[in-house]
Amino acid sequence: MGLDRGSDLPLYQQVAAHLRNQILDGRLAAGTRLAGSRLLAAELGCSRAIVLTAFDLLYSEGYLRSVPRGGVEVAAIARPSGRGAPQPEAGTEGEWVSEAWRSVLDTGYEFDPASPFSPGTPDISEFPFDVWSRLLRQTWGNPASSACIDMPPLGWRPLREATAEYLGTVRGLLCQPDEVAITSASSGALNLCSRMLLNPGDEVWVEEPGFIEARWSLRAAGAKLVPVPVDDKGLIVAEGIRRAPRAKLAVVTPSHQFPLGIPMALERRQELLEWANRQGSWIIEDDYNSEFRHRGSMTASLKSLDRSGRVIYLGTFSKVMFPSLRIGYLVAGPRFIEAFGRGRARIDVHPAGTAQLALARFLRDGHLLRYLRRMRKVYADRQAAVLNAVERLMGADVEVMSQRAGLHLTVLFRPAMTARISDREVSRRSRGTGHFVQPLSQCYLGEPDRQGLVLGYGRLRAEEAFPHLSALAGLIGPAT
Amino acid sequence: MGLDRGSDLPLYQQVAAHLRNQILDGRLAAGTRLAGSRLLAAELGCSRAIVLTAFDLLYSEGYLRSVPRGGVEVAAIARPSGRGAPQPEAGTEGEWVSEAWRSVLDTGYEFDPASPFSPGTPDISEFPFDVWSRLLRQTWGNPASSACIDMPPLGWRPLREATAEYLGTVRGLLCQPDEVAITSASSGALNLCSRMLLNPGDEVWVEEPGFIEARWSLRAAGAKLVPVPVDDKGLIVAEGIRRAPRAKLAVVTPSHQFPLGIPMALERRQELLEWANRQGSWIIEDDYNSEFRHRGSMTASLKSLDRSGRVIYLGTFSKVMFPSLRIGYLVAGPRFIEAFGRGRARIDVHPAGTAQLALARFLRDGHLLRYLRRMRKVYADRQAAVLNAVERLMGADVEVMSQRAGLHLTVLFRPAMTARISDREVSRRSRGTGHFVQPLSQCYLGEPDRQGLVLGYGRLRAEEAFPHLSALAGLIGPAT
Repeated sequence: MGLDRGSDLPLYQQVAAHLRNQILDGRLAAGTRLAGSRLLAAELGCSRAIVLTAFDLLYSEGYLRSVPRGGVEVAAIARPSGRGAPQPEAGTEGEWVSEAWRSVLDTGYEFDPASPFSPGTPDISEFPFDVWSRLLRQTWGNPASSACIDMPPLGWRPLREATAEYLGTVRGLLCQPDEVAITSASSGALNLCSRMLLNPGDEVWVEEPGFIEARWSLRAAGAKLVPVPVDDKGLIVAEGIRRAPRAKLAVVTPSHQFPLGIPMALERRQELLEWANRQGSWIIEDDYNSEFRHRGSMTASLKSLDRSGRVIYLGTFSKVMFPSLRIGYLVAGPRFIEAFGRGRARIDVHPAGTAQLALARFLRDGHLLRYLRRMRKVYADRQAAVLNAVERLMGADVEVMSQRAGLHLTVLFRPAMTARISDREVSRRSRGTGHFVQPLSQCYLGEPDRQGLVLGYGRLRAEEAFPHLSALAGLIGPAT
Repeated sequence: MGLDRGSDLPLYQQVAAHLRNQILDGRLAAGTRLAGSRLLAAELGCSRAIVLTAFDLLYSEGYLRSVPRGGVEVAAIARPSGRGAPQPEAGTEGEWVSEAWRSVLDTGYEFDPASPFSPGTPDISEFPFDVWSRLLRQTWGNPASSACIDMPPLGWRPLREATAEYLGTVRGLLCQPDEVAITSASSGALNLCSRMLLNPGDEVWVEEPGFIEARWSLRAAGAKLVPVPVDDKGLIVAEGIRRAPRAKLAVVTPSHQFPLGIPMALERRQELLEWANRQGSWIIEDDYNSEFRHRGSMTASLKSLDRSGRVIYLGTFSKVMFPSLRIGYLVAGPRFIEAFGRGRARIDVHPAGTAQLALARFLRDGHLLRYLRRMRKVYADRQAAVLNAVERLMGADVEVMSQRAGLHLTVLFRPAMTARISDREVSRRSRGTGHFVQPLSQCYLGEPDRQGLVLGYGRLRAEEAFPHLSALAGLIGPAT
């Protein structure tokens, strides 16, 4: 054994660790009399005092015992045998993980973040990291101690204020800082809301087709998912009431339904709010990517119609800035926020602090608004390029669903196409080609009533749209 | 209504929002014919085109409808009445939060972070924020795109590597980067482990007395907590086996039991590992604050005795650096880590990325080791000062439990003291005095078999120990 004098671990600790491992491995059996400290010290090239300290430590830990006529020997230790134990290293985790955890692992889902078509992946190449890194340095160079100890469970106050202002400006959503909670992106918000509102077995309406990621947190909270179909006016509320009138929660994307892109019609919004009020149920509005609207008209958020605090509005900065940021927000009534904060303080404490200070400044100084203006144009051009390429390459085979916002387009197979090939088959063929595309049917809990493809273009440069899509069209093959 | 030309919200959006709210509030009743666009434009001082665009938007949203002889009027909208709905703004959250959430809110716990005696609160006044902020700037000035998109669910690879190295050096815990997962501090690790391992109703051993915060995440996961008493050798494993032989999990603090400071004896460690192996149960070792050891001898971690992957080792950087960092880690077998990562990817995605890059550098460059060396001395001096003051001021009344590490001391009331006053009464008297102190009995789930006080000294400067403790002694009053 060699001692590492550069290590922060004291030499006697290194000696003790060396002997301890030999004892635990059985290389030094019980009753073995240890060589004298002088001998061992000479062998290891350290002072005898160090060896004696190591002996003391192992003695106090019970690895050594003194023997009648001086000296020490290895004590009798019941080594963990591991006999008869279901080893976690053996078998599948299905044998030992919780049902909730397994339910999440079991849901199949294909996603290739490297694909130019991966939906919801933003382009980070133009993000002003110079500004971001400067703000990080400025905010942490000499921080207030209130920023260094545990932050409030609802988030750093200046960030809550800046977020409320941001939502008014960008989204026309008028809210007070007290109604805002900072979360670990929108998935973190959904995760905590699910645990806060749902008891195992509670029914939850989810859109069919819908956002797959959203279902995981609901499942993990023990929810019974009730798929509610979507038509050209959005969620069919009457059908939801027929299938699960007493659902505790409905999770919807009213601004532009994921993945179809349909805005929820006003009468449906009113029906949904009426139902929630009547039932005392909750509505989670996931307003994903509404910052990236391409047509002028921005649909008002469902939250802005909510007069009785049943709507919990979710959004995230991670998608509009960069994903690893993991900062989002929820907007809800003061009483909800209060109970959210008190419970969160006990199981989640508060969202990581480091980025919150810089983000508050980034918003206040208008950097995000400027960046958004630039990126709206970038993404609008990309969408236009994809629309154009789809029209030219697959016009006869597919129908494009309108997308007034977001980072993806969904194309539906026309009957002739559906007769030729399934969307899962197209997706299967695209694997490993560098153009992996998600099948629409993957977004269904039940039997798909549509076939199509979800085409993300967040990282697809306009000039690359045509070549990538013709490669994809090539996989599908011509109409016969 | 005034238009805000400085706003990022387009003027037509502002006009639309103005009218939408009037319609929703009923100020513009159904059937009301809107003033002509010219008139409204003049009134608002904007172009007619803007008003017409706003009309189009409200029309498409269904707020307006065209009337036979031209012009538009307010459409009939079913406004959410809220009649008969249990309003979240009324009543207590107990009516609508989940049982798990309520179980967490219901546990009483008194904590005053501002008190000089608050346990576990580190001193951040000497933390090298200049270095930290410089590393943040360096790591984010021109980051690799892999650092900006979603990170791996187990954390930023270089940080996992640096953490494995750190644990070997500081803790003598030898592990591979693949066995390390980065978490949102140790509470985040405990939170996810609870959800991963426990089904509602599963029994979990917790130390009695024990760490209160740890129980919340277990409760939120639906666990049935089984208090297992602690004696001068640590957890009484035989008693745990008597009370709940088939417990799914045991949560322990073997290095220095919280709050008593007792290291778990080797035979108890072996018994615990034997039981876990036999049962296929799990052990969470919370090795809180072991970095701050004051006596030379550092007890080996329980994890280092684990030969069959039943031990999940938890630690955090937040307590040794600064709490708002919210970065910790767990060390476990590869199969556990793998299932942990796959499930986490679906409900928690990954820990916030911003600080991970800087922390990896902070560790690699040895900044944390240097800081720890300095702070060990600082905290050792503070502990000595507290010991000395307690001896002089309360020596006759209390017995000090040895603390070989950490940021707090626990003092036990001697029988005479217990006869005079309860620890809860002492705590009650200390409220609002600026010297709030936690009663030991607060750390019990059941009937306390000890009375005492938990004296944190993380932020208690050595020279302040005596005055603060004499103030506290004054609240207790002299022996009669």
